[in-house]
Amino acid sequence: MRAELVIVGTELLLGEIVDTNGPFIAGHLADLGIDVYYKSTVGDNLTRLQEVLSRALGRSDLVLISGGLGPTEDDLTREAVSLAAGCPLEEDAQALRWIENRFLERYGSLSAMSPLNRKQALFPQGSEVIPNPVGTAPGFWLEKQGRIVVALPGVAQELRAMFSETVLPKLRKLSGPEALIIRNLHFSGIGESSLAQLLADLIAEQTNPTLALYASGGTVRVRLAVKAASREQGLALIAPLEEEIKRRAGDYFYGVDKESLEEVVAKAFLERGLTLAVAESCTGGLIAHRLTNIPGSSGFFQRGYVVYTNQAKIEDLGVQPATLAAFTAYSPEVAREMAAGVRSRAGTDYGLAVTGIAGPGGAAPNKPVGLAYIGLACGDNTIVQRHFWKGTREQIKERLACAALQLLWKTINTGI
Amino acid sequence: MRAELVIVGTELLLGEIVDTNGPFIAGHLADLGIDVYYKSTVGDNLTRLQEVLSRALGRSDLVLISGGLGPTEDDLTREAVSLAAGCPLEEDAQALRWIENRFLERYGSLSAMSPLNRKQALFPQGSEVIPNPVGTAPGFWLEKQGRIVVALPGVAQELRAMFSETVLPKLRKLSGPEALIIRNLHFSGIGESSLAQLLADLIAEQTNPTLALYASGGTVRVRLAVKAASREQGLALIAPLEEEIKRRAGDYFYGVDKESLEEVVAKAFLERGLTLAVAESCTGGLIAHRLTNIPGSSGFFQRGYVVYTNQAKIEDLGVQPATLAAFTAYSPEVAREMAAGVRSRAGTDYGLAVTGIAGPGGAAPNKPVGLAYIGLACGDNTIVQRHFWKGTREQIKERLACAALQLLWKTINTGI
Repeated sequence: MRAELVIVGTELLLGEIVDTNGPFIAGHLADLGIDVYYKSTVGDNLTRLQEVLSRALGRSDLVLISGGLGPTEDDLTREAVSLAAGCPLEEDAQALRWIENRFLERYGSLSAMSPLNRKQALFPQGSEVIPNPVGTAPGFWLEKQGRIVVALPGVAQELRAMFSETVLPKLRKLSGPEALIIRNLHFSGIGESSLAQLLADLIAEQTNPTLALYASGGTVRVRLAVKAASREQGLALIAPLEEEIKRRAGDYFYGVDKESLEEVVAKAFLERGLTLAVAESCTGGLIAHRLTNIPGSSGFFQRGYVVYTNQAKIEDLGVQPATLAAFTAYSPEVAREMAAGVRSRAGTDYGLAVTGIAGPGGAAPNKPVGLAYIGLACGDNTIVQRHFWKGTREQIKERLACAALQLLWKTINTGI
Repeated sequence: MRAELVIVGTELLLGEIVDTNGPFIAGHLADLGIDVYYKSTVGDNLTRLQEVLSRALGRSDLVLISGGLGPTEDDLTREAVSLAAGCPLEEDAQALRWIENRFLERYGSLSAMSPLNRKQALFPQGSEVIPNPVGTAPGFWLEKQGRIVVALPGVAQELRAMFSETVLPKLRKLSGPEALIIRNLHFSGIGESSLAQLLADLIAEQTNPTLALYASGGTVRVRLAVKAASREQGLALIAPLEEEIKRRAGDYFYGVDKESLEEVVAKAFLERGLTLAVAESCTGGLIAHRLTNIPGSSGFFQRGYVVYTNQAKIEDLGVQPATLAAFTAYSPEVAREMAAGVRSRAGTDYGLAVTGIAGPGGAAPNKPVGLAYIGLACGDNTIVQRHFWKGTREQIKERLACAALQLLWKTINTGI
C-alpha cells in the first residue's frame, strides 16, 4: 500500500511552525509496513489544496491529511476533499449533536456556539466520521474508487488521539502481514557517544534488525527495527540483540517503547506501595509536574516544594541557616538537608531534592551556571550526586529533572 | 516572486526526523516578501525526485532544495536537477580542489577520500557553486529560463550557514524592497471560535493586512500580516487593525509576538516589585515550572507548594480540616483557603492556588473530571474562579495553568 501525507496550513509555509504531525503519522505507517512516498505541505488556499489532493488521489492508495478542519473560513479541507473526490458535502446529524453537546457541557448553553462551528458537522458524502475525544473538530475517513482519504485536525494532541484510537486500528486491518517491527530501548545517565562506544561492534554489524541511537533531553533511545511476517516473529529476531545491549548497558536502561522515565518511576512506587515527596530549587516544579502527569500518581506522590528562597528552604524543609551560611544553597550539604527534610516533613518513604543554578544569572565564584546537587533520602540514609550541565535555563532544568528521576528509578530498584 | 521548497530524504518520510530546514528557509523568504506556495517532501528516489522538481520548475520562480547532496549512492539531488532542468552534470575543478583541501586539512592525506566524495564536485551545467563553510558538501545556484534552483545540503548547521552567507544576500537583491511584516497578538481565556466571532467582520474584510487565528493549549494567537516597503510602513498599516482588535477583545489580550503568558506575568511582577507564591493541587507543579522557566523569575517567585494530599493542604497551607470535610478538596471554599494560606505562609504580595480533578480517575458525584477552582489572594481580598475543561490529564493541567496565569496577569493589571 502506497500512502502520502498532505499537511495543510499557511503558517507552515511561513516558517512559523514545525510540522510534527507528519513524522508522527509517518512513523506509525512505517511500523505497519506502509510506504510513504510523498508529503506535501500546502497553504489555506482552496485551489492549491484541491490540486494537491487530486494529484495525491491519482497516485496513492491512502491519503492522510492533517489540518484545515477547524471552524474558521480558513479551514478548507472538507471543501477541497469534496471537490477532489467528487463527493458533495452533507451535514451529519450525529456529529452536529455531538458538537452541540460539547458546547452544552462546557458552557451550559449553545449561545457560545458560533454558526461556523456548525460547519464542522459537514463531511464529504460517504464519509465515516472520526470522533475527536479531546477537541471539537471531528475528522473523517472516506473510501472512493479504491482510494482512502483520512482527514484529521492539525492540533497535535487531537490528531494523535484520533489517529491512535480510530485510524490505526482500521489501517492495521488493511495492511498486509509483513511489517516493520520496532522496539525502542531507553537509557538515561549516559551520553549518546558513550553508549555508541559500548555498542560499537553491534552498530557496525547491523543488518536485520537494524540499530540506531537518538539522543534528546538527557535520555538516549536505541531503536531496533526488523522486517518480519508478524510482530511475534519480529520480536523473536530482536530478543537476542536486546539482551546483549542490556547486558552491556543495563545500568542505564530504564524502559521500552513509549515508556517515559516518570512512568517507570511511578510504576515502581505504586507496585511497592511506597510514597514520595520532592523539594525543588532550580528545577522549579518540573519534577513534580512530570510525575503528576502520570495518571494515578496521587497514589505515591504526596507533596512537592518549590523553594526558591533560603527562607523557604529553612521554614518548609528545616534546612539549617548555618548550613546555608557556610556552604551556600548550591552545595551537597544543603541538598542533603533538603532531601532528609522533605522526607521527614511529608512523612514519606523517599525524599528527593535538587538545588543548583539554572542560569543565565546567579553564578558565583566556584559556583558556575549548570552546577547542581541531587539528594535522595530513604530511611536514615541520604545520598547526594553532583551534576554539571551546560545549556540554556530550560535545558538545564530538563536534564536535572531526568537525572533526578533516573536516580530515583535506580535507587528504588537496587537500594540506596 | 513565487517560491517552493523541496525537502529530500527517505528518513523524513519514515517519521524519524522532523524537518526544521523548511521552516528556517520559509521564515526568511516570508521576511523578504517571497511567497511560498508549496513544500514537497520526497524520498531518496531519482524518479520521484525528478518528477517533483519538474513540477516545481513548471509553476514556481524559485525552487529551494534541502538534502541529497552528500557523498553516498542515496544522494541524488544533483542528478535529479540535471534531468529536470536539462543541464548535464559537469565537474567543477575549483570545487574538487576545495573538497580535496578539506580532506587534507582534516586527515593529512587524500586516502580518506572515497571516489564518491569526488561526486560532490559535479554540478548541473551553468551552476554557481555555493561554498560550504562547515562541511564537505557544496551547494549550487542554477538559473535556467527565468527559473532559479538552489540546492543546499540537509545537515541543518550547513544549510543555515550557506543560506545566510550566500543565498540570502543574492535573494535580497532579487526580491526588491517589498517585505511581509508579521505581528502576532496573543489571547487567553477565550476560545478560538468565540474570538473569531468577535472579529468576524474584520476576518471577512481582510486583504492587506491579512488576519488569521491559531489556537494551541488554552491560548489563541491572532496573526496580522502586511506587505509593505519597510518594517515601519508595515507596522503603521497594522496599527489601526491591532487597535480595533484590542478594543473588542482587550480583556483577553496578553502579549505580542514571541511573548508567552508566563513572560508577561513575570515582567509585570518584576516591574512592580511584587512577589508571588503558588499552591497547586491538580496542576501538579506546572505553574511553578512555567514561571521558573523565565530567567530572573527568582526576583518575584518565592515558593511553590504541590499539595497532593489533604494533609499537605492542612499542614503547609493552613486549610481547615472542617472546610475539607464539608466541601471536599475540589471546592471554591478550599481554593479560597489555599490561596489565602499560601500568601500568608510565604509572606508574598500574591497567593495563587489551583484545586481540581485532572483525571482520568478521581471523579465523584457532582465533581466530574475537569472541574477545578482557581483562587487568587492579594491583601485581604481573595477571588475564586470556577473552571471546567474536557481533555486528557495533560491537557487539563495545561489549560488550568494557562487560565491561572491569565487570571494573575489580568488581576495585576486591573486589581482584584
